[in-house]
Amino acid sequence: MKRPWAGQVEKPPEEHIPRHDSRNPLCPGNTRANGEVNPDYESTFLFENDFPALQPDAPDPGSDQHPLFQSKAARGVCKVMCFHPWSDVTLPLMNKQEVVKVINKWAELVEELGITYPWVQIFENKGAMMGCSNPHPHCQVWASNFLPNEPALSDRCQRAYYQKHGEPLLLQYAKQEAEKKERVVVESSDWLVVVPYWATWPYQTLLLPRQHVLRINDLTTEEREGLADIMKRLLTKYDNLFDISFPYSMGWHGAPTGPNLKEDNSHWQLHAHYYPPLLRSATVKKFMVGYEMLAQEQRDLTPEQAAEKLRNLPEEHYKTREN
Amino acid sequence: MKRPWAGQVEKPPEEHIPRHDSRNPLCPGNTRANGEVNPDYESTFLFENDFPALQPDAPDPGSDQHPLFQSKAARGVCKVMCFHPWSDVTLPLMNKQEVVKVINKWAELVEELGITYPWVQIFENKGAMMGCSNPHPHCQVWASNFLPNEPALSDRCQRAYYQKHGEPLLLQYAKQEAEKKERVVVESSDWLVVVPYWATWPYQTLLLPRQHVLRINDLTTEEREGLADIMKRLLTKYDNLFDISFPYSMGWHGAPTGPNLKEDNSHWQLHAHYYPPLLRSATVKKFMVGYEMLAQEQRDLTPEQAAEKLRNLPEEHYKTREN
Ligand SMILES: O=P(O)(O)O[C@H]1O[C@H](CO)[C@@H](O)[C@H](O)[C@H]1O
Ligand SMILES: O=P(O)(O)O[C@H]1O[C@H](CO)[C@@H](O)[C@H](O)[C@H]1O
Repeated sequence: MKRPWAGQVEKPPEEHIPRHDSRNPLCPGNTRANGEVNPDYESTFLFENDFPALQPDAPDPGSDQHPLFQSKAARGVCKVMCFHPWSDVTLPLMNKQEVVKVINKWAELVEELGITYPWVQIFENKGAMMGCSNPHPHCQVWASNFLPNEPALSDRCQRAYYQKHGEPLLLQYAKQEAEKKERVVVESSDWLVVVPYWATWPYQTLLLPRQHVLRINDLTTEEREGLADIMKRLLTKYDNLFDISFPYSMGWHGAPTGPNLKEDNSHWQLHAHYYPPLLRSATVKKFMVGYEMLAQEQRDLTPEQAAEKLRNLPEEHYKTREN
Repeated sequence: MKRPWAGQVEKPPEEHIPRHDSRNPLCPGNTRANGEVNPDYESTFLFENDFPALQPDAPDPGSDQHPLFQSKAARGVCKVMCFHPWSDVTLPLMNKQEVVKVINKWAELVEELGITYPWVQIFENKGAMMGCSNPHPHCQVWASNFLPNEPALSDRCQRAYYQKHGEPLLLQYAKQEAEKKERVVVESSDWLVVVPYWATWPYQTLLLPRQHVLRINDLTTEEREGLADIMKRLLTKYDNLFDISFPYSMGWHGAPTGPNLKEDNSHWQLHAHYYPPLLRSATVKKFMVGYEMLAQEQRDLTPEQAAEKLRNLPEEHYKTREN
């Protein structure tokens, strides 16, 4: 972090977004690429991605006999979910009940798509810096007929720990962090947010329930209210870090579904990862390049430094603060 | 690839770079951050990174008893190596003998640092888009007292294949690709460049010798000449793809060194990875975000499409072409 930065500078996020833009395909009442007209929705709104990366009927690639050339069809569905009818709000600026509606919709989707699909990935790319091409508050949900690499690794590690220690890894981890305190960002009776011990992105965080919860649809009404609260607190701090609408990719990991619903998944603990790209300021990001791509992640901040910085930020959003 | 792009657009790389800039710390004769003056070098030039991420005397983090909180000191050295005294050239624009000098220096470094360090990572971040903050042609060399994650995984997979099939994985792979042809970009009697079967970055390539070679310092004089040739051919095609100085991160992987020099490393095959960020044009990159970070890479192009595109590009550089 001591080196002077003479490299690429990003455009800061757009601060003045119109509440409704008649050309934006995510706004209520507008027409999308496929000719469909959005309803005048008042809360969340879900539709099929008009350019899906996964399709239920993807053709089989055919098999090559050679062990080094093996492929399989990746099948699934891709949905887009708007959080709110207005383009000029984000989760921390929405009220708690509006955020609860988002959480309820997430739970519903995991419940429904999880009947058939082994993995339902809910993720949000926020900000142009994160490849997001639409400022309207939204996330995506991709369900697949296979367990993708990241959750497969997570499953393996959580299972190994559980077999050895008889306790879910992330439950034990949360207990330790809540005691140590040095990496805690925000906490409540039900939830904990830490900059994880292994963080590689500068302000990466991990959001965890304190009770043992397998999947987002297992959360009680109370836990959902608590989740809305803690998300608003975390995201407000993120926005306050550089006084901008903070870019990130985030997503939920919970126990696998589909055929796995019949298996014992006690080793799993529901959690969300937040991966923000910024390092030095609103315009200078961390580049995960060179050594990181070829060898291993290199940390620019310690998790303790990042957690302290986030912890000390106000919980009132810079946009609603007076003065 | 069918979706319209309304997202972030990058600044195209700077095309007019002065040959010598008195404020650039990488140019001959200039003073660096630590007060040292660069010699009037005429070919390659090597120096210690003034802001090293790895240091030989990094303190021990001390150990925590808990199995989830384990750290170890990462020790090593970070060097910077200039390819040429001029800021306005890049490898494809340098002549073959100048590129051979770069290769010889790489070999020398692996030889020397490899006496003590188990891993010597040579890598080049090229272009502001890849976090490179200096246009002068250069790479970095980080040697570490541990085997980093990526090479550790590569070691594991090559070893498992060798144990099962009695032949180095990447040697068999190169033979298969040379026969199949559909993913080949350029080839010569000694070298092969393919868009690998598993490519995730749009124009990712893998550069491989055709003979069994463990490390870059094992290359014969002839193989080094051949390597200079094939690198110039590949990088010229890269620049010709969008008529810009093509950004990428690249790096070499060879058999581990240090204590591993005494072990049998027959399962290893030397190779270089090229990871370029651009997808659609000189200004629209592939965003490895959301689903990629949380679940698994999602390909926008097939490796066969990318290879065909690169294969069909001229081998004369757009900057030296007449018309
Ligand atoms: O060493 P540099 O060029 O200052 O820094 C660049 O390369 C490093 C090694 O790949 C990365 O960790 C940095 O994020 C990147 O900006
Ligand atoms: O689906 P979008 O928003 O068009 O696209 C964005 O998210 C996808 C899923 O994370 C990525 O694969 C794309 O690279 C990114 O630009």
